[in-house]
Amino acid sequence: MSDMNSILVVGSVALDTVKTSSGRSVEALGGSATYFALAASYFASVQLVAVVGEDFPRSHRDTLAKRRVDLSGLQAAKGKTFRWSGKYDKDGGVATTLTTHLNVFKTFRPTLSQAQRKTEVVFLANIDPDLQAEVLAQMHKPTIVACDTMNYWIDSKPAALKKLLAKVDVFFSNDEEAKKLTGAANALQAAEVLGDWGPSVVVIKKGEHGALMKVREKFYVFPAYPLARIKDPTGAGDTFAGGFMGYLAASRAHNDVWHLKRAMAYGTTLASFNVEDFSTRNIEDLDRVAIDERFHDLADRMTIPRADDPLKSRRAVSA
Amino acid sequence: MSDMNSILVVGSVALDTVKTSSGRSVEALGGSATYFALAASYFASVQLVAVVGEDFPRSHRDTLAKRRVDLSGLQAAKGKTFRWSGKYDKDGGVATTLTTHLNVFKTFRPTLSQAQRKTEVVFLANIDPDLQAEVLAQMHKPTIVACDTMNYWIDSKPAALKKLLAKVDVFFSNDEEAKKLTGAANALQAAEVLGDWGPSVVVIKKGEHGALMKVREKFYVFPAYPLARIKDPTGAGDTFAGGFMGYLAASRAHNDVWHLKRAMAYGTTLASFNVEDFSTRNIEDLDRVAIDERFHDLADRMTIPRADDPLKSRRAVSA
Repeated sequence: MSDMNSILVVGSVALDTVKTSSGRSVEALGGSATYFALAASYFASVQLVAVVGEDFPRSHRDTLAKRRVDLSGLQAAKGKTFRWSGKYDKDGGVATTLTTHLNVFKTFRPTLSQAQRKTEVVFLANIDPDLQAEVLAQMHKPTIVACDTMNYWIDSKPAALKKLLAKVDVFFSNDEEAKKLTGAANALQAAEVLGDWGPSVVVIKKGEHGALMKVREKFYVFPAYPLARIKDPTGAGDTFAGGFMGYLAASRAHNDVWHLKRAMAYGTTLASFNVEDFSTRNIEDLDRVAIDERFHDLADRMTIPRADDPLKSRRAVSA
Repeated sequence: MSDMNSILVVGSVALDTVKTSSGRSVEALGGSATYFALAASYFASVQLVAVVGEDFPRSHRDTLAKRRVDLSGLQAAKGKTFRWSGKYDKDGGVATTLTTHLNVFKTFRPTLSQAQRKTEVVFLANIDPDLQAEVLAQMHKPTIVACDTMNYWIDSKPAALKKLLAKVDVFFSNDEEAKKLTGAANALQAAEVLGDWGPSVVVIKKGEHGALMKVREKFYVFPAYPLARIKDPTGAGDTFAGGFMGYLAASRAHNDVWHLKRAMAYGTTLASFNVEDFSTRNIEDLDRVAIDERFHDLADRMTIPRADDPLKSRRAVSA
């Protein structure tokens, strides 16, 4: 398994209960590692390391297996599966957490197999930064190390997080978290500070406002795919990261702006599919044709025509 | 003057006192028509219709004249010039109005000259929608009618505004205003509603998050030019509209997506220059070389590379 086409993801697999203005889903498949794995599965082979309880439905396991996600690292522990419930305001933007029951996730200490240790691309989804570091310490020289985090760890373990970032190549964060972690006034300044802490690539996710990427000293900016109706934004960030990292692993590229910009667009594309339905429903059964169609549609919508491009010449002829 | 290269703008010329985290500027040149006229002047000849008081500094008039803005419609009335003062939080995003003194602007009733009436492109900056309609009624069949508005008129004269929009081709609004005016849950839904009211082109400005454009049934999305440091966001929206409409007038195009997307990028470009310094300082003395350089830089940063583009072939060769 030691090739760039394989990604290891360590994070949560959860049962989510979500209420949005479009409706409600109860104990549906969720968790950061789940969304990431499904999105990345369209580009690369994914090894998932996580823990569930004895109550985890067979059907959810099948959903991941159908996408050929390697579940040998999905431990089934005594107890109940991690459960989260939340609701969204009518803009679909801000999540309010109603309940969090860590359950078996509370004592999760991932130990990687020999095969897993050799994976060249690793994504440390938002778990305790000390755990993220433990996982990373088990790896044999990965080519690309990426991670995400969340407000909870920024508040409780900022030092551990900062220490981890020194060893990370690609850091994903949403804009509020990035500003909080760095104390910066805006997302761009936050990305500058985060870059100074280690990652050569910093991706700041802004939900409906798109995302920006800092590669070395330069910023690249991307809008979100325009969707007038969003059913459920849960998991959009992890789905974005899955599309981004999946494409990067498949392209065997690292620190290459040409590929990194395409990775941003694939992340945007996968996230846009995800928010069109509850839970993981809309990213369970995609294919590369549908994904590439939206990728090109996004590119078409946001491309700024140059005076010397072919379309202009065509216009000049037909005018 | 009756050609597409000429734009008539009706709006405010003001003296602004602004405080931001970068400093302060006192009684500096401001007003919606001012920002619009300066930005548009790099593309088209601009006729400005507005009113100032006896205290309006000669130097401010010179600033506009130097950009060859036609000031024959700038009335000098008895009394004081419109004054606005405001401050911004450290993100530079939200303006808090401290004082507004309408002064001579209170009784402003624009009467257009014969030459002005024949202008083919008109921008009705954010003044009383009844006044905007009065100006429009004086025009001889303009080819492109564009307008902007603000919260104050949305609250006080929503019916007049809606009636005006039926006669408008291009409507500019910021996202909060668009949602307020339509009651829509997000900017895209707001643009759909606004389009139903009349304008074939709806532009929703989102400040640091860029802008989106709806042309007929399709959305086009654009990030802002990435700037880590913003000195003064005052006038960014009007500068955006000036760059957009100036380019559109110069290109003699209307309802043509190829040109409308370029217009969005020129609006973005001009707005990005504007916020880099206080008042109009940074858009008083630009040139098309500097503008086009940033236009292409923006396009480069946000272009999603296609697998079949020339850069890819070059990579394949050099790899």
